[in-house]
Amino acid sequence: MRTLHVELKEKSYPIYIGSGLLKKTELLQKHVLSKQVLIVTNTTVEKLYLQQLKQSLEGYQLECVVLPDGEQYKNLEYLNSILTALLEHKFSRNCTVIALGGGVVGDMGGFAAACYQRGVPFIQIPTTLLAQVDSSVGGKTAVNHALGKNMIGAFYQPKCVISDTTVLETLDFRQLKAGIAEIIKYGLIRDIALFEWLENNIELLLKQDNEALSYIIERSCINKAEIVTKDEFESGLRATLNFGHTFGHAIETGMGYGEYLHGEAVAIGMCIASELSHQSAYINSDEVDRVISLIKRAELPIQIPGDMTFRKFVDLMSVDKKNVDGQMRFILLKKLGSALLPLDVPISLLKSTLSSYGQ
Amino acid sequence: MRTLHVELKEKSYPIYIGSGLLKKTELLQKHVLSKQVLIVTNTTVEKLYLQQLKQSLEGYQLECVVLPDGEQYKNLEYLNSILTALLEHKFSRNCTVIALGGGVVGDMGGFAAACYQRGVPFIQIPTTLLAQVDSSVGGKTAVNHALGKNMIGAFYQPKCVISDTTVLETLDFRQLKAGIAEIIKYGLIRDIALFEWLENNIELLLKQDNEALSYIIERSCINKAEIVTKDEFESGLRATLNFGHTFGHAIETGMGYGEYLHGEAVAIGMCIASELSHQSAYINSDEVDRVISLIKRAELPIQIPGDMTFRKFVDLMSVDKKNVDGQMRFILLKKLGSALLPLDVPISLLKSTLSSYGQ
Repeated sequence: MRTLHVELKEKSYPIYIGSGLLKKTELLQKHVLSKQVLIVTNTTVEKLYLQQLKQSLEGYQLECVVLPDGEQYKNLEYLNSILTALLEHKFSRNCTVIALGGGVVGDMGGFAAACYQRGVPFIQIPTTLLAQVDSSVGGKTAVNHALGKNMIGAFYQPKCVISDTTVLETLDFRQLKAGIAEIIKYGLIRDIALFEWLENNIELLLKQDNEALSYIIERSCINKAEIVTKDEFESGLRATLNFGHTFGHAIETGMGYGEYLHGEAVAIGMCIASELSHQSAYINSDEVDRVISLIKRAELPIQIPGDMTFRKFVDLMSVDKKNVDGQMRFILLKKLGSALLPLDVPISLLKSTLSSYGQ
Repeated sequence: MRTLHVELKEKSYPIYIGSGLLKKTELLQKHVLSKQVLIVTNTTVEKLYLQQLKQSLEGYQLECVVLPDGEQYKNLEYLNSILTALLEHKFSRNCTVIALGGGVVGDMGGFAAACYQRGVPFIQIPTTLLAQVDSSVGGKTAVNHALGKNMIGAFYQPKCVISDTTVLETLDFRQLKAGIAEIIKYGLIRDIALFEWLENNIELLLKQDNEALSYIIERSCINKAEIVTKDEFESGLRATLNFGHTFGHAIETGMGYGEYLHGEAVAIGMCIASELSHQSAYINSDEVDRVISLIKRAELPIQIPGDMTFRKFVDLMSVDKKNVDGQMRFILLKKLGSALLPLDVPISLLKSTLSSYGQ
C-alpha cells in the first residue's frame, strides 16, 4: 500500500493506493469515527463490493443508499434521496458518509455530505479508474443541472481516499478507457514524462497490467494533489485541470447526460482544445497529431458528435465555470506538458477551430 | 452609519448598520465587483424596496428572482428556481448574489450562492429585525426538509451585510416581535446587561423607537460576531446560539413550516429550555419566571401548541444538529446571562419538563 497526502492545513488527508484495501478493516475503521455510517453506491457496484465493505464495518450502524448507475441520475432529485435517508435514520452531524463507486457516486455522496447539517465527515472509496486518478481527489463535489454540468456543488474535502486497485479487475473496459483520458490530461498539462510514458506503454494499461495501473494511479494522484494543494478553490492553477473539459462538458450536457462517459467527452474535448492551442499559435500541427494519436490508441473517441453544432457549443459553454462576466475562457496548451491559465478566445477563432477540426 | 467587523481571516467582512443605506449607491457598489448581479427577494419586499435597490445598482446586468413569502417555500425546489435563473442568464462564477429580505430570503440566496458553480460572491441586505440581529450574520445558510428544519445547507460567509434600519418602518408588527425573541436570546446566553436593558425598555422596542432599535441591532450583532469569530463551524461555543431552538425547530417542523414564525417558535422554545435548565438544577423558578415574563411582555407566544405531544417533540428533535450518534442534546442556562455547551438530557427529565411546563 502506498500513502500520499493532500496538504490542506486542517483539511489535509491521506490517499491510500493498493490491492485488497476494501478488506482492510483497520484502515477503514481508523477513519470512521462515528457509530452511524451511510454508504452511497450504485446498482452496479452494490452487487460487486457492497457486501465486502459492510463486512469491514461490522458493528457500526450501517445504512445504504443504492443509486441507479449513470450520469443522468446525478441531479438534485437523487441528491435529495440521500438526504432523506440520512434524516429517516436520524443521522447526526458526526455521522460518516462513504461513497463507494465511480465519479457520479463520489460527487453525489460528497455533495450530500457537504450539505447535510451543513457538513458531515466523508470518505471516498473510488471503484473506477477515472475516480481513482481524478474525481475522488481534491474535494470537488457537484450535481448536474439541465442547463449545465456540475453547476451545483461544493468544495468539500474527504477525510481520506481509499483506492483499492483490486476492484479495477471487474471494471467495464469502456469505463477503463474513460479513466485513461484523465491520465493523458495530466501528461498534457504538466507532466511531459508521463505523456511519453503513455506513448510507450498505453497497451499495458489497456491490458490492465497491474503494475502499470498502480504506477499510473499514484503518478496521477501526485499530480492532482500538487495542484489542489496550491489552489484548493480554483482561483488560478487548478483551472488547468479543466483542459478539454470546456468542450467535454458541453458534449455531455448537449448529448444528454449518460450518452457519453465523462472521460469519452473529455477525450474529444482534448482533441479540440489541442487544435485550438494550435490555431492560437502555441503548439504545431505535429504536436496536435501526437495528442490525437495517443487518444486514438487508447481507443477513445476523437470525433465531434454530429449533433454538436457550433451554435450548440457556444450556447452550452457560455455558462462554463471559468468564464468571467459571461466571457468564454479556455485552457490551452503552451506546449505538450504545459498548460496556460484560462484565456479569452475570440469567437471567430473558436468557429474556425471547430470547423477545421472536422465538425 | 456604524460599521462592525466579523473577523474570519480571509473571509472577514463588514456589517453596516444605519438609516437609508439602501440608497447609498457607493456603499453597495464598493462590494459588487461583477457586472452580473442577481437579486433574490420575496413578493412582500419586492413591492417595498426592490426598485430602490435597483436604482442604487444602475449600470449592472441586474436580474431578479422573486420568491413567495414564507418559511414553507424554503426548500430545494425553490432553491433550484434560483439556480435555474442564474444558469438561464448565463451568470459566471464572479457574479454577485444579493439577498434582499428576511431570514428565509437570506438563507435561500446564501445557499444558492454557496452552491452555484461551487460558490459565488454573496451580499446580505436583511429587511426584518430578526434577519438584522441574527440570521444575516455568521454565514449559516440552509433550506428545510420535510423531516427537519435547516437540515440542508452550508456555512458560507457573505462579502458584507447591509442593515438599513429605515426598512423596519414598514415591518409587520408580528415580524418585529419575532425579531425581539432572538435579541432576548443574546441576553440569556451571554449578556445579562442586555437582558436587564430589555426588562427596562421592552416597550420602546415594541413602539419601534428608532434609537432603541439601532442600539439593539448593533449590540446583537456584536454578540453574534464575537461568537462566530471564535467558532465559525459550530464545533462548540456557537451551539449556544441555539438556545431555545431545539424545541423551536421541532415546533416549526411539527406544526408545518410557516404556521409559527421562527422567532415565535424560538420564544416558546426558550420558555421550555429555561424550565429544563431549572429542572436540571441550574436556575431557580424565579429566574424561569423572569424569562417567561419578558417574553410575555414582548407579546410573544409562550404556550406549547396542543398538537406538539411529547412523542412528536422527541421524534423531531432526534435529528437536531447538536445530537451526537443519535443522542439528543440541549443548550441549558447555567444562570441568566450564561449558557452551557450542549448537554445530554435524560429522556425522563425531558418528559417531566414538558409536562410540568403545561403541555
